[in-house]
Amino acid sequence: MSTPHDYAHANAEHFRNQLFDLLRIPSISAYTKTHADQVRAAAEWLATDLRAAGLSAVEVIPTPGHPVVYAEWMGAGENAPTLLIYGHYDVQPADKVKDKWTSEPFEPEIRDGILYARGSSDDKGQAFIHVKAVESYLKTVGKLPVNVKFILEGEEEVGSPNLQPFIAANVEKLKADVCVISDSGMPTLDQPAVITSVRGLTYMEIHVWGPALDLHSGQYGGVVHNPALALVQILSKMHNPDNSVAVPGFYDDVLPLTPADREALARTEIPEAVIRRDSGVPALWGEPSYNNRERTGARPTFEINGLYSGHIEEGAKTVLPARAMAKVSCRLVANQESLRIYELVRDYVASITPPTVHSEVKLLNRGEPATIPIDNPAIQAAARAYAKSWGGQPPLFLREGGSIPVVADFQHYLNIPVVMMGYGLNNDGAHGPDEHYVVEMFHRGIDTAITFLDEVSRL
Amino acid sequence: MSTPHDYAHANAEHFRNQLFDLLRIPSISAYTKTHADQVRAAAEWLATDLRAAGLSAVEVIPTPGHPVVYAEWMGAGENAPTLLIYGHYDVQPADKVKDKWTSEPFEPEIRDGILYARGSSDDKGQAFIHVKAVESYLKTVGKLPVNVKFILEGEEEVGSPNLQPFIAANVEKLKADVCVISDSGMPTLDQPAVITSVRGLTYMEIHVWGPALDLHSGQYGGVVHNPALALVQILSKMHNPDNSVAVPGFYDDVLPLTPADREALARTEIPEAVIRRDSGVPALWGEPSYNNRERTGARPTFEINGLYSGHIEEGAKTVLPARAMAKVSCRLVANQESLRIYELVRDYVASITPPTVHSEVKLLNRGEPATIPIDNPAIQAAARAYAKSWGGQPPLFLREGGSIPVVADFQHYLNIPVVMMGYGLNNDGAHGPDEHYVVEMFHRGIDTAITFLDEVSRL
Repeated sequence: MSTPHDYAHANAEHFRNQLFDLLRIPSISAYTKTHADQVRAAAEWLATDLRAAGLSAVEVIPTPGHPVVYAEWMGAGENAPTLLIYGHYDVQPADKVKDKWTSEPFEPEIRDGILYARGSSDDKGQAFIHVKAVESYLKTVGKLPVNVKFILEGEEEVGSPNLQPFIAANVEKLKADVCVISDSGMPTLDQPAVITSVRGLTYMEIHVWGPALDLHSGQYGGVVHNPALALVQILSKMHNPDNSVAVPGFYDDVLPLTPADREALARTEIPEAVIRRDSGVPALWGEPSYNNRERTGARPTFEINGLYSGHIEEGAKTVLPARAMAKVSCRLVANQESLRIYELVRDYVASITPPTVHSEVKLLNRGEPATIPIDNPAIQAAARAYAKSWGGQPPLFLREGGSIPVVADFQHYLNIPVVMMGYGLNNDGAHGPDEHYVVEMFHRGIDTAITFLDEVSRL
Repeated sequence: MSTPHDYAHANAEHFRNQLFDLLRIPSISAYTKTHADQVRAAAEWLATDLRAAGLSAVEVIPTPGHPVVYAEWMGAGENAPTLLIYGHYDVQPADKVKDKWTSEPFEPEIRDGILYARGSSDDKGQAFIHVKAVESYLKTVGKLPVNVKFILEGEEEVGSPNLQPFIAANVEKLKADVCVISDSGMPTLDQPAVITSVRGLTYMEIHVWGPALDLHSGQYGGVVHNPALALVQILSKMHNPDNSVAVPGFYDDVLPLTPADREALARTEIPEAVIRRDSGVPALWGEPSYNNRERTGARPTFEINGLYSGHIEEGAKTVLPARAMAKVSCRLVANQESLRIYELVRDYVASITPPTVHSEVKLLNRGEPATIPIDNPAIQAAARAYAKSWGGQPPLFLREGGSIPVVADFQHYLNIPVVMMGYGLNNDGAHGPDEHYVVEMFHRGIDTAITFLDEVSRL
């Protein structure tokens, strides 16, 4: 009888073609008005494939936003562990012309072993690994060594507004012993990594306005506080000279790094040359008293994600804009709380807004930070699975700069360890143009996910 | 025989309908790629109407950009003065939905005696006054008391890039004794005003960039200088705490206000309540040691006209943008030079750009400031014309905050006084949504322009 690994290898091209079909669906969750049907189409596509793979109780479950896909295989019995597999099938916006993609973001293309498409790395290409691993097992062995539950959401890229209520309302349905998430990266193709912490997120919009309507900059320039200038002045007060965040109270709940933490982080330091090469920046930036891994993994941030005011099209319109807006977000670390951070930013902006303009800070979405101890048995099971598929190379244990708010939610509501074993690379261009994914990662990932099922069965 | 005034009154409705036709042409000069034909159509429409009014040598003269319309009537003889009439037939961009207009910007509508349309006040509705005044004279008296030359340009709203070369190359053709421009406002319908100085303009774009592509704000937030933040930090250094401009050397060439200047300006001070009512701002802003008229008329400024970076559409995209851009402009006063100001801003931005990002300051367009002495006979002729049409009310002599760069060009190349007698109101919403124009201004304006021809003939 052929093994699950044999099946996965024999079906490599078929699996890739299936992934292409999934990537062709522009399931942009942020575009609720125009793309809701496409997001739902991706959910239905996955549900169909999960049924074909041999899973049961497959459902596309409505939420107030985009749906959740659920599936399970419970044939291993009550005494076997249950593995909860989380992924997301929604993607960030992408526009070939505006964002300068080389090829169409929703027409996948392989060039030199690299698959280019929105969602290829984040997260369709990674989530699909587990579907194909389970299929490979069921189509060969006929059963899995563990019980499995899939929960695939369609709102991760907009902050999962409906996932936490869903988990809270379905604790029994989602009950499991271990959760695995593949939505992260490794430093190089040859160096796998298990993520042991993720940053939280508080995403906000800052609005500043003064005049009732746009004004003529000649008539009013000099007597009216330009809202774009007022916004600039407010945003310029969000950082201290040492690049730390200036919002009062911002660091109050940050767990200080222990000497042991800092020693461990120093071992995974990212060289300046690597960051410069991958990002293209002329020089690095950040808090001088922390190294690069600490700055991205263990320290909170305040970033400007978007700026808009006045005339941004062609030509020289001499307008004094009535309004200005910034999209901003804070990445949070344990034990910061996302709602508290919103309140601190809101109050600080109010306190530094001059009487010459009005301002408002709106909360768009949020998620909590999370950490998982390295010595947790599930983390060690992941390490063994990686080593077996990566020629003996043990994974690094990394703190991740990005946010996967569901990690904290699973920990909180289901009280289970969350294993983050990803198959992206840090320069895959997630959220940017030309997002891509190493094709070999997809196939090694399926091998690793098959092995991980065996490892979890021995926990 | 009926008088020019009689003719203008008898044809009031006809003149309004003609103005409607002109306003319906979306001659947006900034949109060089999409609207060049519309700008040309407005030029041709005016040429046709000038011919019908009885002018000769009517030409639509090509330039490297949008055309200049020229027309003349030289029948008053060599001993009579020649009046050069300047106006512009191009308009600012306008979009009903995006800019929140009440009615279509290019479908004129009169509501309660107010004409709403892009260009109604700035400047089609004002420039057309002179065409109709000349027509009224020629169709009744059969000749004008002075020689007249019209020069109507199509690039004023983009900084007249081709007008200065045109004037320099056509000094003989444009030779005149007095120039009149109606492209300004008065404080109220009952209080006419002659503008005795205009501010210059230096319009620039500041670009800041670092990463080669947009980055994931989680992966890189904390080690990469966010270009939007870097732009904010640069822009926050453009003003001093007293709201003066912080660019080194910016004020070096500013003519200090004499005690007499300040006394004259104090007489035309704009009350805070008026500015607040007209603009809607909660409180005024500016340099504490100057009054409102000085701030808008006698002091230079640095304004942000547009801000753009990253994700500005719906939703919460956690991007660390690769680039950020600001459109900025300085209003200048005598004797600042627009090119020198560009160089100062460029050098200052370079000096405060940190090594973590790149920056560039691009010059979009520029124009010089100008002043005309109140005791110039042409200014006094304008004052008499206003008084006769405004029930004896003499005009105020005002410094204008806006920029009409051609004033300095006419002074420089033709060595003639430039009389700025406008028929707008300061809250007409020029450059903003719901731009409008008091219909009565149009008709009083034609009366005044007829009388002004008589006054100029006596100079």
